[in-house]
Amino acid sequence: MKNGSAAVEPMSVVDVIRAKRDGHRLNEEQIDWVIDAYTRGVVADEQMSALAMAVLLRGMDAAEIARWTSAMVASGQRLELKVDRPIVDKHSTGGVGDKITLPLAPLVASCGAAVPQLSGRGLGHTGGTLDKLESIPGWRAQLSVDEIMRQLNTVGAVVCAPTEGLAPADRKLYALRDVTGTVESIPLIASSIMSKKIAEGTPAMVFDVKVGSGAFMKSQQHARALANSLVEIGGAHGMHTTALLTDMSVPLGRTIGNALEVVEAIEVLRGGGPRDVVELTVLLAREMLALAGISDVDPGEVLASGRAYETWCQMISAQGGNPEGGLPAAKHVHVVNANRDGVVATLDAYAVGQAAWRLGAGRSRKDDAVQHAAGIRCLAKPGERVAAGQPLLELHTDSKDTIKPAIAALNGGLEIRDTAAAHTMTVLEAVRGSVPVADAAPDMQAGDRV
Amino acid sequence: MKNGSAAVEPMSVVDVIRAKRDGHRLNEEQIDWVIDAYTRGVVADEQMSALAMAVLLRGMDAAEIARWTSAMVASGQRLELKVDRPIVDKHSTGGVGDKITLPLAPLVASCGAAVPQLSGRGLGHTGGTLDKLESIPGWRAQLSVDEIMRQLNTVGAVVCAPTEGLAPADRKLYALRDVTGTVESIPLIASSIMSKKIAEGTPAMVFDVKVGSGAFMKSQQHARALANSLVEIGGAHGMHTTALLTDMSVPLGRTIGNALEVVEAIEVLRGGGPRDVVELTVLLAREMLALAGISDVDPGEVLASGRAYETWCQMISAQGGNPEGGLPAAKHVHVVNANRDGVVATLDAYAVGQAAWRLGAGRSRKDDAVQHAAGIRCLAKPGERVAAGQPLLELHTDSKDTIKPAIAALNGGLEIRDTAAAHTMTVLEAVRGSVPVADAAPDMQAGDRV
Repeated sequence: MKNGSAAVEPMSVVDVIRAKRDGHRLNEEQIDWVIDAYTRGVVADEQMSALAMAVLLRGMDAAEIARWTSAMVASGQRLELKVDRPIVDKHSTGGVGDKITLPLAPLVASCGAAVPQLSGRGLGHTGGTLDKLESIPGWRAQLSVDEIMRQLNTVGAVVCAPTEGLAPADRKLYALRDVTGTVESIPLIASSIMSKKIAEGTPAMVFDVKVGSGAFMKSQQHARALANSLVEIGGAHGMHTTALLTDMSVPLGRTIGNALEVVEAIEVLRGGGPRDVVELTVLLAREMLALAGISDVDPGEVLASGRAYETWCQMISAQGGNPEGGLPAAKHVHVVNANRDGVVATLDAYAVGQAAWRLGAGRSRKDDAVQHAAGIRCLAKPGERVAAGQPLLELHTDSKDTIKPAIAALNGGLEIRDTAAAHTMTVLEAVRGSVPVADAAPDMQAGDRV
Repeated sequence: MKNGSAAVEPMSVVDVIRAKRDGHRLNEEQIDWVIDAYTRGVVADEQMSALAMAVLLRGMDAAEIARWTSAMVASGQRLELKVDRPIVDKHSTGGVGDKITLPLAPLVASCGAAVPQLSGRGLGHTGGTLDKLESIPGWRAQLSVDEIMRQLNTVGAVVCAPTEGLAPADRKLYALRDVTGTVESIPLIASSIMSKKIAEGTPAMVFDVKVGSGAFMKSQQHARALANSLVEIGGAHGMHTTALLTDMSVPLGRTIGNALEVVEAIEVLRGGGPRDVVELTVLLAREMLALAGISDVDPGEVLASGRAYETWCQMISAQGGNPEGGLPAAKHVHVVNANRDGVVATLDAYAVGQAAWRLGAGRSRKDDAVQHAAGIRCLAKPGERVAAGQPLLELHTDSKDTIKPAIAALNGGLEIRDTAAAHTMTVLEAVRGSVPVADAAPDMQAGDRV
């Protein structure tokens, strides 16, 4: 009534906060307005964080989440991908040693699809995909829209930073949630992921939702809820989607850390590498190709043929990197040895991730730099027999004083027993979107071990 | 680990927010740190608002609330009241037409106690107590600590603004809650009230917790919870307390609005005025005197004797006002007439409060000015017989264009029927603190009508 700004704005942010706080649905007008007003700075950070906490504790239903996502998409530009082949992307919620994007994008491109992967840097135990690739000297994460289009049409795969104008509301909200204890909300996580992917313009997405100690989602129940939400938002926006829940209780592959993971990805692209990384790469490629309607190519054969490695080299070169050049090596390598004979029984992903983070592989604040060479190499994984004194882990770092806290972080996460089973990469569940796809998805069942 | 400020601060605010968000108790260290860090600006507004929302939705137990209150007290100075007579204060949670402080403070002082009432301005339908008194030309709300002490020792009553250094954490948090939808939390309301009163240094408090459409607490259940919390915090800080739940479904007295309420308060002090205002004033005075250990004075007699009016005049003069001077009158007075013969059945406090607010008696933002002359005079109250065409309400305002919205706000709040009961001031419940007091409290029971 009395103040100027209230007369201009169609509603009061306090009313919107109260509605969610008191457990009501937000309607489309409220959602559209609050996201837009936040982007414009009319809704202040302290108001949005209160709303985010109310959303976290009260939830949003599928329709609210879909609208919230649309509003974040509408806060910026949308890419229009003009590519001569079917487009499909993949998103992982992140895990310890998860370098799958690196071999996967060139593999799927080699099979005939276009993969426009706009990735993040992320916080946590290691850097995001961009941090990993930036360990390649000269490689550029920041591309223009024209460069993205050109590379998609020539190489078929591009992994780069989101262009400035994509989902600015999400960018702002993501940073806010990080400092206000409002990260762990499935509606906010799902809408954040999807707003970027919808703005990116991909018509099909495969999600790798990680479950376990080394993942954001510790329980299968929460992971399933996130998978369902991602697939529902996709459906509401006409996107073909599949979400796989995969185990993240043990690090993926044998390396954790930016340059170390690039090395392992190249091994996989050259036909070698750890079995679990190879298997998950091929499995996700199959899912992506199914959504893209490409059924006549076997990604396992393509990987073995070396064609994916050629695409990798083109992809790295196109962004200024030398695919055959050297990678940074750590100044200090500390070896952790087995304290007894036996079989590795536990190699806990969380503990290894924390140790890698302390060595300098990850960041704790947005503006921190990562150490490209820092990280961990796992010389023995669960189920493997070791002798007392045999090397188990290599701790790589440029800062010698991080070794002690890294070892402390490993505490209890590494165990040798008389006997123990081998750990295999496990798909726990699959959630498939209801938008009909051109081709049948692979005949994988929940619980399959591959 | 990696960032400088984390090394200096003993804990992370995100951890504190998460703990409350996930339904855990906050421990003393967490509460002390978060309030102190917020006062210092290390915890940002967007972090505190997320925590406030988590507190609102998850609650705090009695021990947490007591500690939260102590931490807010510790954020600033505490007054040390050096007065030669027993000290007692009163706090009302606010209602439509609630001008009780105005006659009450000088009445209780006239009975031999000292009343140090540090009041607020407040948002809502009318101004706070300070706004009411500021309608007296020349009257000053802002006093120094020395001035407060001198006036308490000479006049015995002082109504003024809190001094700058009292509970700065509360000042900051109060403003934040107002814009973030985090006002309606009993732990936050109770700790806010009590932090100011404890810092003020009063050893005894009577609370008038209003219940009904014109009050902040619409239900007796919520009002009881607030009363219990206030009394519990008081007990934890060694303060003698009594809380009364009183009805606020009908405006108190016959006037709503700053200068109009001062006029009515003076009528009461001169032995006249509306019965409900007189009764509540005397009732609260009895409760205050009981806590102060003064049992040999009847406040009803003192009010009738005119001695309280003399104290009022001294109190106003001491703060620069002329107690016999004129008060501002509104430029426009619009009369609302009865549309039929009958008995006033409804005069809804909320509707009348909203109408007064629209006329300019209250503010919607902290920095708005109030119109001192704006408000409503109720010429007929529930149970009173009226004839068609007879004046029911006077709407006072300096802004003619507010009359139409004020009438719209009254809609449904004013009803005439063939018959209706009179409305009497009702005490719904009393909650008495467990700190033993020197003298027995008056023998009032819950549900008593006085």
